[in-house]
Amino acid sequence: MIISKPTFVVDENICKLNIYRMIQKAKKANVIFRPHFKTHQSAEIGNWFREQGVDKITVSSVFMATYFADHGWKNILIAFPVNILEMDQINALADRIELYLAVESESSVNFLANKLTGKAGIYIEIDEGYHRTGIEAEKTSEIGRLLRTIKSSDVMKFEGFMAHFGQTYSASTQSEVERMYNSGMKKLSILKHEFRDINPALKISVGDTPSCSLLEDFTDADEIRPGNFVFYDVMQYHIGSCAINDIAAALVCPVVAIYPDRNEFVVYGGAVHLSKESTIERAGQKIFGLVSLWKENRWGLPLDNTFVERMSQEHGIVKTTPAVIHSLNHGDLVAILPIHSCLTANLAEKYVTTGGAILKKV
Amino acid sequence: MIISKPTFVVDENICKLNIYRMIQKAKKANVIFRPHFKTHQSAEIGNWFREQGVDKITVSSVFMATYFADHGWKNILIAFPVNILEMDQINALADRIELYLAVESESSVNFLANKLTGKAGIYIEIDEGYHRTGIEAEKTSEIGRLLRTIKSSDVMKFEGFMAHFGQTYSASTQSEVERMYNSGMKKLSILKHEFRDINPALKISVGDTPSCSLLEDFTDADEIRPGNFVFYDVMQYHIGSCAINDIAAALVCPVVAIYPDRNEFVVYGGAVHLSKESTIERAGQKIFGLVSLWKENRWGLPLDNTFVERMSQEHGIVKTTPAVIHSLNHGDLVAILPIHSCLTANLAEKYVTTGGAILKKV
Repeated sequence: MIISKPTFVVDENICKLNIYRMIQKAKKANVIFRPHFKTHQSAEIGNWFREQGVDKITVSSVFMATYFADHGWKNILIAFPVNILEMDQINALADRIELYLAVESESSVNFLANKLTGKAGIYIEIDEGYHRTGIEAEKTSEIGRLLRTIKSSDVMKFEGFMAHFGQTYSASTQSEVERMYNSGMKKLSILKHEFRDINPALKISVGDTPSCSLLEDFTDADEIRPGNFVFYDVMQYHIGSCAINDIAAALVCPVVAIYPDRNEFVVYGGAVHLSKESTIERAGQKIFGLVSLWKENRWGLPLDNTFVERMSQEHGIVKTTPAVIHSLNHGDLVAILPIHSCLTANLAEKYVTTGGAILKKV
Repeated sequence: MIISKPTFVVDENICKLNIYRMIQKAKKANVIFRPHFKTHQSAEIGNWFREQGVDKITVSSVFMATYFADHGWKNILIAFPVNILEMDQINALADRIELYLAVESESSVNFLANKLTGKAGIYIEIDEGYHRTGIEAEKTSEIGRLLRTIKSSDVMKFEGFMAHFGQTYSASTQSEVERMYNSGMKKLSILKHEFRDINPALKISVGDTPSCSLLEDFTDADEIRPGNFVFYDVMQYHIGSCAINDIAAALVCPVVAIYPDRNEFVVYGGAVHLSKESTIERAGQKIFGLVSLWKENRWGLPLDNTFVERMSQEHGIVKTTPAVIHSLNHGDLVAILPIHSCLTANLAEKYVTTGGAILKKV
């Protein structure tokens, strides 16, 4: 495989294994598996899920829902507050697939009651403490009002409560993730029991990658929606969600400048390729990626004491050791393990597999 | 103009005025104007420069150079260390346009001496203290060796020394920018005089937006290459490079959720639209964008005490005041002034002008 500029490379075997493991876990825990496709945004990686039996997916925009509907997906949840400005596209989707929408306010539900023309399943998004979107779990009378509006509609069908425990992304140990999960799930369980009368089959849908990776038992959950696990990344490795060998994607970059005096080298691969997402290493150092060698069409383990220290638009400045510096030449390729694969993948126009295949994406 | 999802909007008048002013400044200072096109990456915005007489440009990748060559630009500097893996594309460019390359090591120059097949102007990149790329200004014997290799080549023509005073991006006052500029320029001036014998016409090329915006006199510089000024952004506004009214681009986003209890609202517009670039507000708050209202196809001044506080992939969470919260409705549009317009522009597939025209880009 010839690589001459920053290239997002996917290890197909690792990726398929990540998918396989999560499917097995969902089966064992007896929960519906509705993976989030926002991470890869690729019809071809979508097919790897389909080949393993997945038929329900999650996306985070009407645009992505349309893309995956165009690629044969028939059951899609848009896990993002209904954007009422896209009502025409939402109605078009409701006509062609089994569509699920997320609502988080009376305003949205009332809008849908008036403007939704096709049938859609409705998840009420609950804020269990992350404070991004959703109705606070404690506001049961407001939740009740939403439910009554949904129930009185011909086109909306109440599916259940969904939540995203996004706080787990800032956890640094398994027990911290467990504590966050249990705290959030406790609130959802209360709602599940409180509103069971309205729909005995109501589902609880959750789904951050740390919880789904680190827990085995999902208590009252009926559905999980992890996304990032398909590639994993340095952030997940730091949390403990994955081993370093489970990271299924890397940005392969040419070395364009080498500075032995500074123990730094520069790659063609910057903020427009990696994203500006950073994390703090155990030593307190802010880093933008771990770095490994790229040999024989695959990457190795991250090099010791080597990381992307800063970036410009197209430049990545890598801090490393004298030994690495002296082994490098202009035009060598290195593989950068991304801090947050969702953002790095989003910046790629297409992916290449370690086997040399090109994977199209949104 | 109908906007239903995150849209990068350019105010054509402000943008053309920013271009006009920088051209006038370069004329007055008697320096060549070679604007950096990495910020906008748009053939159509390129035309706005051409209409005002610009015929030399800077880009930061072979890919961008090829794009702009395809759109009629005949004189292009790739201000990025030569990526020897793209030698074929570089040679193809050297055959069709007046191409300039940046070198920063003997290794690159030796490679070019062997592999460059068409003629190219060569800038030696000097590191005057920013420590990104370039030969340290003090290494005059190494610089001399590079010059001799260049001089002995049939295809390379030594053009001059280039530098990027990137440290000015972290300045917070005009005098700090001036101090950084003067410190960097002092080193370049020494080189200019030291190597004048080799090429009496050698040029000094510099070009960060803070210096080019805040200084009037460029001392020993012969050429300036600012890029960001075409749009400016919140970071430049904080440095003092521009007035808030000079910012020529904003990301217009739908309001999808409103939380009066938290004085927060959520827009469809997150890290994949704005980038994760942040800056620190005077009050010590980390922000990802300033927020203004979008009315009658234009944005207003930023709302007081209102900013993008955090982001997910598609969500932007805006902290604001009760007054703003109570004036907002689902489906309203707000305009987010980006922290770093280069990265936000890069994430857009196309731009829309306040007049409703669509501008194609890379």
